[in-house]
Amino acid sequence: MLRIGLLGAGRIGQIHGGNIAAQPAAGLVAIADALPAAAAALAAETGAAVASIEEILEDRSIDAVVIATPTDTHADLIEAAVRSGKAVFCEKPVDLDAARIRACLAVVAEAGVPLMIGFNRRFDPSFAALKARLDAGEIGALEMVTILSRDPAPPPLSYIERSGGLFRDMMIHDFDMARFLLGEEPVEVYALGSSLVDPAIGEAGDVDTAAVVLKTGGGRIVQISNSRRAPYGYDQRVEVHGEKGMLRAGNHHTTTVEAATATGYSRDPALAFFLDRYREAYQAELSVFIEGVVEGRALTPSGEDGLKAQILADAATLSWESDKPVRL
Amino acid sequence: MLRIGLLGAGRIGQIHGGNIAAQPAAGLVAIADALPAAAAALAAETGAAVASIEEILEDRSIDAVVIATPTDTHADLIEAAVRSGKAVFCEKPVDLDAARIRACLAVVAEAGVPLMIGFNRRFDPSFAALKARLDAGEIGALEMVTILSRDPAPPPLSYIERSGGLFRDMMIHDFDMARFLLGEEPVEVYALGSSLVDPAIGEAGDVDTAAVVLKTGGGRIVQISNSRRAPYGYDQRVEVHGEKGMLRAGNHHTTTVEAATATGYSRDPALAFFLDRYREAYQAELSVFIEGVVEGRALTPSGEDGLKAQILADAATLSWESDKPVRL
Amino acid sequence: MLRIGLLGAGRIGQIHGGNIAAQPAAGLVAIADALPAAAAALAAETGAAVASIEEILEDRSIDAVVIATPTDTHADLIEAAVRSGKAVFCEKPVDLDAARIRACLAVVAEAGVPLMIGFNRRFDPSFAALKARLDAGEIGALEMVTILSRDPAPPPLSYIERSGGLFRDMMIHDFDMARFLLGEEPVEVYALGSSLVDPAIGEAGDVDTAAVVLKTGGGRIVQISNSRRAPYGYDQRVEVHGEKGMLRAGNHHTTTVEAATATGYSRDPALAFFLDRYREAYQAELSVFIEGVVEGRALTPSGEDGLKAQILADAATLSWESDKPVRL
Amino acid sequence: MLRIGLLGAGRIGQIHGGNIAAQPAAGLVAIADALPAAAAALAAETGAAVASIEEILEDRSIDAVVIATPTDTHADLIEAAVRSGKAVFCEKPVDLDAARIRACLAVVAEAGVPLMIGFNRRFDPSFAALKARLDAGEIGALEMVTILSRDPAPPPLSYIERSGGLFRDMMIHDFDMARFLLGEEPVEVYALGSSLVDPAIGEAGDVDTAAVVLKTGGGRIVQISNSRRAPYGYDQRVEVHGEKGMLRAGNHHTTTVEAATATGYSRDPALAFFLDRYREAYQAELSVFIEGVVEGRALTPSGEDGLKAQILADAATLSWESDKPVRL
Repeated sequence: MLRIGLLGAGRIGQIHGGNIAAQPAAGLVAIADALPAAAAALAAETGAAVASIEEILEDRSIDAVVIATPTDTHADLIEAAVRSGKAVFCEKPVDLDAARIRACLAVVAEAGVPLMIGFNRRFDPSFAALKARLDAGEIGALEMVTILSRDPAPPPLSYIERSGGLFRDMMIHDFDMARFLLGEEPVEVYALGSSLVDPAIGEAGDVDTAAVVLKTGGGRIVQISNSRRAPYGYDQRVEVHGEKGMLRAGNHHTTTVEAATATGYSRDPALAFFLDRYREAYQAELSVFIEGVVEGRALTPSGEDGLKAQILADAATLSWESDKPVRL
Repeated sequence: MLRIGLLGAGRIGQIHGGNIAAQPAAGLVAIADALPAAAAALAAETGAAVASIEEILEDRSIDAVVIATPTDTHADLIEAAVRSGKAVFCEKPVDLDAARIRACLAVVAEAGVPLMIGFNRRFDPSFAALKARLDAGEIGALEMVTILSRDPAPPPLSYIERSGGLFRDMMIHDFDMARFLLGEEPVEVYALGSSLVDPAIGEAGDVDTAAVVLKTGGGRIVQISNSRRAPYGYDQRVEVHGEKGMLRAGNHHTTTVEAATATGYSRDPALAFFLDRYREAYQAELSVFIEGVVEGRALTPSGEDGLKAQILADAATLSWESDKPVRL
Repeated sequence: MLRIGLLGAGRIGQIHGGNIAAQPAAGLVAIADALPAAAAALAAETGAAVASIEEILEDRSIDAVVIATPTDTHADLIEAAVRSGKAVFCEKPVDLDAARIRACLAVVAEAGVPLMIGFNRRFDPSFAALKARLDAGEIGALEMVTILSRDPAPPPLSYIERSGGLFRDMMIHDFDMARFLLGEEPVEVYALGSSLVDPAIGEAGDVDTAAVVLKTGGGRIVQISNSRRAPYGYDQRVEVHGEKGMLRAGNHHTTTVEAATATGYSRDPALAFFLDRYREAYQAELSVFIEGVVEGRALTPSGEDGLKAQILADAATLSWESDKPVRL
Repeated sequence: MLRIGLLGAGRIGQIHGGNIAAQPAAGLVAIADALPAAAAALAAETGAAVASIEEILEDRSIDAVVIATPTDTHADLIEAAVRSGKAVFCEKPVDLDAARIRACLAVVAEAGVPLMIGFNRRFDPSFAALKARLDAGEIGALEMVTILSRDPAPPPLSYIERSGGLFRDMMIHDFDMARFLLGEEPVEVYALGSSLVDPAIGEAGDVDTAAVVLKTGGGRIVQISNSRRAPYGYDQRVEVHGEKGMLRAGNHHTTTVEAATATGYSRDPALAFFLDRYREAYQAELSVFIEGVVEGRALTPSGEDGLKAQILADAATLSWESDKPVRL
C-alpha cells in the first residue's frame, strides 16, 4: 500500500484527500495545512494524522506526497519532496515562471523520483475516450482541434490579480489538452483577448474573453476559446477533425429530464461546478498516480508537460500583449 | 403523361393539386368541387380547368382521379371512377363502415383498375427509411412496435361528432402504420380510452386520450397511444424493437437553433401543422401513385389495406365500448 | 449515528453495505450471510463485524437492519426484525404472495417500527426530478404515463423459473414507478405477453416480452412495456404527458463522445449494468432511509407500496393468463 | 408582377430559375446562357424564353436580372444591367478584386437601381432565426462568434486554381456571416492555413484547412474554421455567445431515424450537397429580392456587404501569406 501525505487541505486538497482515502492501493497517512483546523477536519474525515510539512517530508514511511498548496509554493515543495525521495503529484501549475519550472525539473531529474502534474481534464472519461479513439485511428490523421472552455462566472478580482492572467491561469488547461490530443508540438501561437465580462478585469490588465490559434510543425491547426462567463453552466467541449471524420465530447447535465411545452423542448443547464464536472477525472488521475508509482511506470502528465503548457501560456500572453504571432 | 382529374379542392385537395401539378410525369387537367370558387382558385393556380365530377368521369382523355372530397362520398366516387376506367387515388378512409368498404372493393376488383389509399404517413421520409432498414434486417426479427400520435389541439366538436370516433378518425393512421411495420396481421386488440382533454368530447360519446395494445399471430406486440392535445407541436413518433436493437423516428422542428441560458438548454417546439409535418409525405405518395399507374405496378397502400385498418379501428372501438379484448 | 446490521452480502448486499459505510449519519456494524466468506469479505472492506442473523437481531445496540437476502426470506426476516424493534429497509419484493405480504405488514404495524421497501428507481436523480417537476405543476394535470424497461439480456432460466414470472419479477418496478407518478391508484389492468427472446422462457411458462395498459379511477392511462433483451444497453425510460406538455427521462451513457464519419453520427450504447445505471439511486435510497429513521419521518416507499405493486403484478399475471382485463 | 431575366443557366442558375418561376409575385421571362442547350432546357422547364444577354438587357419590359454566370463576368454584367435600369441580384462574389468591386459599386450608385448579393446563408431558416433571436436580446450583448464550414470534399484542382484561394472562395461566406451576426465591423484579421486534405492543393498555392480569428472595434471575437473535407456531410454551424448565454444552429439530416444496436446509437450523416442544405435559403433570398424590388425597400446583403466580405477575404489571404495579423 502506497503511504501518502497530503500538503494542503483547501478545496482541491479535500477532493484529493477523499480520493486517496478511497483508493484500495493507497493510504492517506498525514495531512498538513497552514490552517490547522482545515487539516484537522479532513484528517477526522479520512482517518489520517495531522502533521507539519516538515514532518511529512522527514517521515521515511511516507512514500509519496500530493501537493495542493497555493501555486507559489509548488516548485519549492516539489524540490523538497523529491530530495526527500518521495514521489510527487502536484496540482498544476508547477510555477507561473518557465525558468523556475525548468530549475525545479532539473532537481526532480537529479533526484530520480517520479513527478506527475494534475492536468485533470486528460482523465475525464469522455475526453480520455475521445483521445483513445483518436489514437486508435477512428478518424484517421488528425487535422484540426477545437477546444472551448467557459467558466460559469469570473473569480474574485483579487484572485485574477495574482493569477498570471487568463492565458496562464485558465487557458493552460486547454494548452495541455491541445498537446494531449495533437501528438506533436505547436510551433506558432496567436492570441486575441478582450475584457467583455467585467471591465474591472480589463483595468486589472487581464482579459476575460480570449481566442487562440496554434499551428504545429505538421500544419495541424488548433482553435481555443475561453470566457470567464457561461450562464448555462461550466462549458467544456472538445472537437477534433481528421481525414475520416469528427469526434467530440461535451458537457455533463444533472439529469436526463427533457420537457416539451408550448415554448419548446428544454433540458437542464450544464453542471456548473468544476468539482462536479470533473469528479471522475479527479478520481482517475489519483488512481493513475498511485498505480504508476507502485508499478514503477512513467507518469503522465509529466513535469515536462507542465513546462510545455506553461511555455504556450507565456507565448499566448506575449502574443496578446504584442498583437503578433509568436514562434516557438 | 398521366392526365389526372381532382375531385375536391378543399384543404387536402389543394395539397394534392399542387403536388400533381409539380409532377413531371403527370398533368392536372380538371378540378371539381361543390364550391365552384374553390375549384376555380386552384385551377387558376395550377393551370387546370374547372369541371363537374360527371364531366371528369366522362372525359376519356383523363386517366386517373384523385379523390379528396368528404369521407361519406369516397366509396360512391371510387365506384363511379373505376367503372369509368380511371385509376383512383382516394384519401383515407374508403368509408367508416367496413361492409361498405368491402362492397366498394368488390366493384374495384371487377373493374380491374388500380386503387391506392392515402395513408400518407407510410411515405414520410423518416418512417419510410425506418421501414426500409427494418426490412433490410438491421435490427433482426421484429418484436415490438410503439406508435405515438398526438394532435396539437382537438378539432371542433362538430367534426368529432361526425368522425366515427377517435379510433376510426385518428388512430386509423396508427393501425395502418402498425400493419405497415409488422409484416403480419394483428389477431387481438384491446383499447382503453378517456376524455381528459375536453369533457365535451366525452359527453359526445368519444374519447380524446387512448391507448391500444395489439398482438399478432406470431406474438409480436404493438402499443399505440393517441391524444387530441400536444402543446409542444404535432407529436408523431415510431419506435420498433427487434432482436438486434431499436429503430425510431420522430418529430420535425422548424429550425436547428438551440439556446442555452441560465434556465437551461432549449430548442423549438415540434412543427404544429400536419401539412407542414407531412409535406414531403404528401408529395411522395402522389409520385408513387403516378409512377405506379404509368408503369402498371401494384399500388400500396391498397384498398385492402384501407379495409384492414378500418377493421382494426372497429375492433378497437368495440373493445373500448365493451372493455374486453377483441379477437380478429 | 444510526447503527445498522446488514442481512445478506451478495451482489446487492455489497452495494448497500458500501453505501451505508459511506453515510456520515450511519455505521455499518455487522454483516450476516449464509456464506461466511461473503460476509467476511464485505466486513473487511467496510470495517463491520461478521455476525449471525440472530446475533444481529438480538443486539440491542443495532438500530436498524437492511435486508438483502433471497426473496423467500424477506417476510420472515422483516417480522423478526420489527419484533426486535429494529427499523427495516428491505429489498423488493416483500414476498411473491400478496396474502403473505398483508400478514407481514400486520406484524410491522403492530410493532410500530418503520419499514421501507427498496424500489430504487424512485431515487434515480432523473426520475426523481421528473416526479418533482410533475408535482410542481410544470405540465399541469397528468394524463398519460409511458414506462419502458428493457434488460440487456435475460437472466438464467433457473432464475426465471423461481422468479414468479416477468410481471412479478421485472415489471413490478414499473408498477411501482406508475403508482409513484400517478398520484392515484390503477383500477384496471390488461396484459399481453409473448416469448420472443428465448423459446425456453415460454416453455418454462413465462414471457420475455410484455405490454400492459392500466387505467386509474380518474381515467389516466399508463402504458408499460418490458423486454428481457436490449442489445444497446439497459433501457429505462419514463415519459409523462399532461395538459401543458411532456416530461421524459432516459438512459445514461458512459461518455459524451459523439463520432461523425461517412456512415453517420454515433454515440455510446446505454450503460448495460443495472448497478451502474442506478448507482446514485442506490445511494440515495439508503440516505433517505437513514435520515428518515433518525428524524422519525414516515418512510416511502412503504410496505403498503410494496403490497400495491405486488397486487398489480398479480393482476397483470392473471390478465395475461386469462386474456381478460382485471379490475381491482 | 416583376419580370425577371436570368443570366446563366448552370447549376446555380437552374436553382434560381426554378425559384423565380415558383414566386407568385414574379415571372421568369427570359434566360441567357453561353451554352444554348442549357438555356433551352431550363426555358422548357420554366416556360421562359431563350434570349441573349444583350436582348435581355435591352428588353424594357424586363424589370430585373439575376446573374448566375461565371465570377469573372459578374462586375461587367452588373454594370451593364444597372445602366439599362434593371434591378440586379448577383451571385457572390461581385469580383475577386476589391478595387474592381468598388468601381462597379460606383456605377451601381450612379445608376440608382437596387443591387443584392447572393450570400444565401443569411437566409437559411436556422441562421436567420438565430440572428433574429440575437437581435431580440435573448442572450444580451454579443461577445463571441464561432463559425464552422466544412465542405464534403474538395472541388477539382482546376476550380481551385481559378478560385482566388480558400479565403476568397469558401471562407467569404463565413466573413459575411460574421458581419451579419456581429453588428459591427472587424478591425483585425489573423489567418492560419494548411494543406492537409490534398497536397496538390498546397502545391497549387492554396490551403484546404484554415482558421481565422477576427476582432471588432468593440473587442468582440470571431473564430472561423474551414476545411475542404467532411466525410459525414456538409458541416455548417454557427455558435454565438453573449452575456446571458449561447445560441447555436447546425446541420440538417435526411431523416430523423435513430438506431440503437450493440455498437451504440447512430443517426444519418448530415446532408452532403449544398443545394439540399440551403434549398430553403435559396428560395428565401429570391423572395426577399423580389419583394424588396417590388416594394422599393433597401436590399440586403448589399453591394457594400459584398465589398466588405471581399476585403476581409483579402486581409485573411494577406495574413496567411505574411503570417502577421492585418489591421483594417
